[in-house]
Amino acid sequence: MSLIVQKYGGTSVGDLERITGVAQRIARYRRQGHKVAVVVSAMSGETNRLTAMGEDISQQRPDPREMDVLTASGEQVTIALLSMALQVESIDAKSMLADQVAIRTDSAHGKARILEIDTDYLRSEMDRGCVPVVAGFQGVDKNGNITTLGRGGSDTSAVALASALQADECQICTDVDGVYTADPRVVSEARRLDHVTFEEMLELASLGSKVLHPRSVEFAGRYRIPLRVMSTFADGPGTLITVENENMEQPIVSGIAHARDEAKITVSGVPDIPGIASKILGPVGRANVEVDMIVQNTAADGLTDFTFTVTRQDYERTIALLAPVVEEISARSVSGDNEIAKVSMVGVGMRSHAGVATRMFDCLASENINIQMISTSEIKISVVVAEKYMELAVRALHSEFGLEED
Amino acid sequence: MSLIVQKYGGTSVGDLERITGVAQRIARYRRQGHKVAVVVSAMSGETNRLTAMGEDISQQRPDPREMDVLTASGEQVTIALLSMALQVESIDAKSMLADQVAIRTDSAHGKARILEIDTDYLRSEMDRGCVPVVAGFQGVDKNGNITTLGRGGSDTSAVALASALQADECQICTDVDGVYTADPRVVSEARRLDHVTFEEMLELASLGSKVLHPRSVEFAGRYRIPLRVMSTFADGPGTLITVENENMEQPIVSGIAHARDEAKITVSGVPDIPGIASKILGPVGRANVEVDMIVQNTAADGLTDFTFTVTRQDYERTIALLAPVVEEISARSVSGDNEIAKVSMVGVGMRSHAGVATRMFDCLASENINIQMISTSEIKISVVVAEKYMELAVRALHSEFGLEED
Repeated sequence: MSLIVQKYGGTSVGDLERITGVAQRIARYRRQGHKVAVVVSAMSGETNRLTAMGEDISQQRPDPREMDVLTASGEQVTIALLSMALQVESIDAKSMLADQVAIRTDSAHGKARILEIDTDYLRSEMDRGCVPVVAGFQGVDKNGNITTLGRGGSDTSAVALASALQADECQICTDVDGVYTADPRVVSEARRLDHVTFEEMLELASLGSKVLHPRSVEFAGRYRIPLRVMSTFADGPGTLITVENENMEQPIVSGIAHARDEAKITVSGVPDIPGIASKILGPVGRANVEVDMIVQNTAADGLTDFTFTVTRQDYERTIALLAPVVEEISARSVSGDNEIAKVSMVGVGMRSHAGVATRMFDCLASENINIQMISTSEIKISVVVAEKYMELAVRALHSEFGLEED
Repeated sequence: MSLIVQKYGGTSVGDLERITGVAQRIARYRRQGHKVAVVVSAMSGETNRLTAMGEDISQQRPDPREMDVLTASGEQVTIALLSMALQVESIDAKSMLADQVAIRTDSAHGKARILEIDTDYLRSEMDRGCVPVVAGFQGVDKNGNITTLGRGGSDTSAVALASALQADECQICTDVDGVYTADPRVVSEARRLDHVTFEEMLELASLGSKVLHPRSVEFAGRYRIPLRVMSTFADGPGTLITVENENMEQPIVSGIAHARDEAKITVSGVPDIPGIASKILGPVGRANVEVDMIVQNTAADGLTDFTFTVTRQDYERTIALLAPVVEEISARSVSGDNEIAKVSMVGVGMRSHAGVATRMFDCLASENINIQMISTSEIKISVVVAEKYMELAVRALHSEFGLEED
């Protein structure tokens, strides 16, 4: 018998039938003798619907406090419905809002951080056999205001709850049955991973694998909460995300991620003097454009090229706001390309294996794929290639590193 | 400058455009220098939609606690949206849930009673120029559970808030512009009343005038909160409901109400012995059938007829459950009629005027309308007539008592 925190996302509770299905799934765990606490998101589409109403009535300038009150109502609906559905399955259940738990956060509306979770009430309810059904995504600040945690908030709620309860496992139940070596829609041989480390998952999540939000992975890693990604709709062990284990045989490469939604921007002929990078990226950051990869080459003739990537939707805007900057810093020009993609190999095994990068570049070269940018970390190598080569690159690398084999 | 509590119902906040209209209306009061606290219902249809989901998923046996969590989310949406809309009008506004206020109730989920309202937070916000936008219909019990107040709940919330804040007036803003001498759809000459007493309003509300829920009127009367019914969508003074005022010239009859949704049931040949009434009405009450009028005549030959009215939807069921009772108490039979209507004259002036009843019965007789049942109180006379004569009876009485004249 163990203590499990299960989190069900918007698709898993998308309609009444699915909520009933989730209740039956939870009931099976209860009947196996596990203590279960549940965290749920709003029904799929609800948060967007509520947000759109708020944007609309406020003429696109919603008060962050009120936006949190508005959107938090979405989870309130699902916790009540799921509690009722559990009762139909003869499972004792009770909905809990963030302030009832209590899940205390700072006051940064829309992107609040969890400060502490009071587990007394939760524990006493679980000890008497009750399943607490907790509203994800939301918290309460020290003044009693409703806050929300922002993107990936419900995953973070679940991990934080698992940490506070010292749960044996935090299960993220979703519409995929685990983490794959690559996107199965791109590589038909892609294989579900039984294990992956937090660091790898963090890189995979950041790199466009939509399974988990990086924030929740980081949180789970820091507090060493075993995290399992599994399907709500099918049986199976899913993928367990844990700390690196000496006994676990480490493959060199665990997975290959890709991100299509990128664009690169190059400021050419930049005088190679201190402070140039911040002169270029300062205005970009202030315009709330998120920068991903940044590459600057060694200067030749006192001039250098400065290249970075942004999401594709920020492309035009970023080019426009750099025009005056180019003049100001006496650079030659600004140019860009929004038909690029990022392909990344991730694996803790890379640390101890030299030559992984060379093998990656050789593989791409043999397919005649030109590499436009390179960025590396301890457990990741990312390259930017023309978008049209993306699938080919992912497949070639998947095969080169033998990821289809168990 | 006065302190006003305004309540807006579901129709008044039925869509974003209407919510914006309500915000503009509140802004006018603020600019006139009034302090305003606002109570809102869920957007029209929302409570029904949420309730239906709860009924559905729980197989028609929703847990009352969870039903309250579910339905209370409706008001949470409107308080956030209205606060945002007020901010667009440059009015400082802040949404408040029941537990944030706090509005403390007992734990009777679905029909909770307000125990006390903490006004410290409300007052401090209003003192600094803020408009608190409070979720109607909901409260919080001593254990932090969400409760709801049941039918007419938001009106009750508004009156309770006005009482706690010692407001100068509680304005119920709705889709009608006041209380009328009769239903204008039945009597084209019906006239809006400038004043009506709490007692009269209570009788009118109980008698099918849908403007205000009796519970809120009773509450306002007990705490002597001036209550004004007025239109959200048009200018005008509405109808002020106050305690009886010596200087206010009292018309004999203030208004004529009707209720079509009634049925009468007669148990005939009942032995006239003590305890019979409770033998008949006991099973009816236990089946949760609400009984309205009850009439028992003086017995002749030791036998009497016992007649009462119920809502039309309870008619068949009540007839059925009385069959064994008739046998048990050795009565002759049970019969009924579900094509009846109730017509009532209400007015505090009746107290001091004899002969009002006679004039009413004469008027109906002159129209050849047969009276089937009569029931009276200090300020009300109700008669049951065949449903087909209802409109005629209302019009004839309206004219007889000169209600079309100011």
